[in-house]
Amino acid sequence: MKVTILHGNIISADEFGKIAIYESGYIVSVDGNITFIGEVLPDGYQDYPIDDYGEALIMQSLADMHLHAPQYPMLGMGMDLPLLEWLNTYTFPTESHFKDNDFARVTYQKFAHELVENGTTRVCMFSSLHRQATLILMEELEKAGLTGYVGKVNMDRNGSPDLQETTQESIKETIQWIKECHFEHIKPIITPRFTPSCTNELMQALGQIAHDYHLPIQSHLSENLSELAWVKALHPDCEQYWETYQKYGLFNSRTLMAHCVWSDEQERKALKDSGVWVVHCASSNENLISGYAPVHKMKEEGLKVVLGSDIAGGDHLSMLDNIAATIRASKARRIIDQWRTDFLTVSEAFYLATSASNEFFDEKPGFAIGNKLHALILNDSELTSAKKLTISERFERCIYRRQKDAIQAVYSEGKLIFKRK
Amino acid sequence: MKVTILHGNIISADEFGKIAIYESGYIVSVDGNITFIGEVLPDGYQDYPIDDYGEALIMQSLADMHLHAPQYPMLGMGMDLPLLEWLNTYTFPTESHFKDNDFARVTYQKFAHELVENGTTRVCMFSSLHRQATLILMEELEKAGLTGYVGKVNMDRNGSPDLQETTQESIKETIQWIKECHFEHIKPIITPRFTPSCTNELMQALGQIAHDYHLPIQSHLSENLSELAWVKALHPDCEQYWETYQKYGLFNSRTLMAHCVWSDEQERKALKDSGVWVVHCASSNENLISGYAPVHKMKEEGLKVVLGSDIAGGDHLSMLDNIAATIRASKARRIIDQWRTDFLTVSEAFYLATSASNEFFDEKPGFAIGNKLHALILNDSELTSAKKLTISERFERCIYRRQKDAIQAVYSEGKLIFKRK
Repeated sequence: MKVTILHGNIISADEFGKIAIYESGYIVSVDGNITFIGEVLPDGYQDYPIDDYGEALIMQSLADMHLHAPQYPMLGMGMDLPLLEWLNTYTFPTESHFKDNDFARVTYQKFAHELVENGTTRVCMFSSLHRQATLILMEELEKAGLTGYVGKVNMDRNGSPDLQETTQESIKETIQWIKECHFEHIKPIITPRFTPSCTNELMQALGQIAHDYHLPIQSHLSENLSELAWVKALHPDCEQYWETYQKYGLFNSRTLMAHCVWSDEQERKALKDSGVWVVHCASSNENLISGYAPVHKMKEEGLKVVLGSDIAGGDHLSMLDNIAATIRASKARRIIDQWRTDFLTVSEAFYLATSASNEFFDEKPGFAIGNKLHALILNDSELTSAKKLTISERFERCIYRRQKDAIQAVYSEGKLIFKRK
Repeated sequence: MKVTILHGNIISADEFGKIAIYESGYIVSVDGNITFIGEVLPDGYQDYPIDDYGEALIMQSLADMHLHAPQYPMLGMGMDLPLLEWLNTYTFPTESHFKDNDFARVTYQKFAHELVENGTTRVCMFSSLHRQATLILMEELEKAGLTGYVGKVNMDRNGSPDLQETTQESIKETIQWIKECHFEHIKPIITPRFTPSCTNELMQALGQIAHDYHLPIQSHLSENLSELAWVKALHPDCEQYWETYQKYGLFNSRTLMAHCVWSDEQERKALKDSGVWVVHCASSNENLISGYAPVHKMKEEGLKVVLGSDIAGGDHLSMLDNIAATIRASKARRIIDQWRTDFLTVSEAFYLATSASNEFFDEKPGFAIGNKLHALILNDSELTSAKKLTISERFERCIYRRQKDAIQAVYSEGKLIFKRK
């Protein structure tokens, strides 16, 4: 029995827009599962060692629900280019490097480490189309202590000479990859790149594979206006973009759809009725001038919304940085809506980056009893203030300051996976 | 004679939107003034030691042309509040702490150090209304190696009980403060907080003082819509906001006006005709939902535009961070303008944060011969890439990654003022 006891100022995003605070509190996990949270340590735990973080903040670690691992080497480049030129000049050539397993190993090792340092412990990510590099990625994430899903990308049209499969290759490699997955914490997810990258035949097969192997699905939806027009031209049979996934069994309550910037009322209703997860990627949408998703409205309508860094459309792995971007984008959206819609508060955006995805991992919001203990320790003792701050003020400041260096330790499933030297 | 020779990959923002690159180049300053830039070190300098930065990038250090030093202790807090509530809950109480000289000393020492670490060597900033704290601020900036202007704030109405002067106090303290300024690199600048904070009598006096002592001026203009309405109500005599400064001699070619988000065609023409400097504060405008200044249009119209972090409306001292914010805000503006206006490229935004303010300091753009040598060294050797990057790509990546830790050294007027351990 492995018992972990953390002590410090605990913040738990129990509800959208509402944080619960335990000043000088304790959180206990047994074999990775939370068994207690509160201000007085109950009997029975006194003999175990305590990881005492004093005045530091203990909060849920972060979930990055949409990112492209093979775009890590191009992070922060090409942002002056229009989307299609950016794809052809940077994205496709960079991804094609992952046919080289040695390059994949070195890159993904560094990448996994940087995720952990930034307090991300749960992920849903795209790999490239390369089966072996995908397995290497999964292995490196597992070794670094991360949990979640990785998808070998499928694309049998509209790629580049160096980055495309035939339909049959794509299907065969996907099945072989699924069979080769044997990781405890990193699981496979079906990943058609997006409708323009996949023929109907491939989509059909992927829907079948997802069904046969009981796998979740991730893709892109309604990111920008030219993409919408492109999908419309490719699919005169479908009235709306989402239907191009739905008709092949790829649009259900275990589907993550990145972006949904331009999802209108009808598409949002389809997302809701199908229980599909919207992955909002604020930084990427800003950088690529895609637009501003109506996140506040989506929440009001009852959609399930989580966050993604979407590197390398997004420019930072840090989900603290992405929470700040999410707030900012919601404020931009408020201006576009002529101040008629609300922006997202710090607590709301933090919830989206943490608790909101718990249900995807079959858990309850916040540090709920029974959840796996995913936590980070934030040390803000170096920051100046003119008065004694409340825990809530310190929490807000840590989000806005988004200092990687302030993350002192990270826990995944009750295990310490990072400690700053 | 003090000779400084830097060697590395040099980037100089010679024109708006265009960088000059000197691969493995040299830059020389004698007694702080640049005497050479190029790829082959000329005769006569061979006997001097060279600060060799190898593959690192050498670029102009940054100018922060609008920020509030006494708001440093509240950086990153209160961003969910509307502007007026934010002012009353955070800004005024925080600023009022600077009546305590000891608090001012400790805070401003840390603040000056953080500016330098972030590669900022030129500033125009607001202090609080306290004369002594203002002198302490100037002294700490000077000691840290910064250059530029600091203003004792004037406000004789609409403050708080703890933060307001009588008109006569304000005038008297300002004159005394100017007489007590005796710093080599940090000079006084006349600083009416903004029109709603200053009676006509005070404005009149400040215009006279600026004239008598040949001082530049800084204030706020057209930041948000409710402010515009307030100024209109206070000044039925003025058709537009800018006139409330102009009628008192506070609107000329040595005036910096922060924000100008809502300056319409007529106000922009006045700004141009008077040679007033627009200080664009993207991060602050995003955080406080002020709006998106039409910067690209301003540049096309020939206005002088520079950048400010505007902490603590802005959330980061790092001007790399603020360059990224500037690009982002211009992309938001492009969306608001229905894709009819251009966004700012990386080179354009970098120019605004560096060369654009050189003229304010009587210099030419870039690392021009005769300019003071203000430089920073960026080390990006820790970052991964899939291919050998061009200097231009590395430059862009450094801006987007905006890593404080990548700043290896900083020079101000030819003198090394920071070196990372």
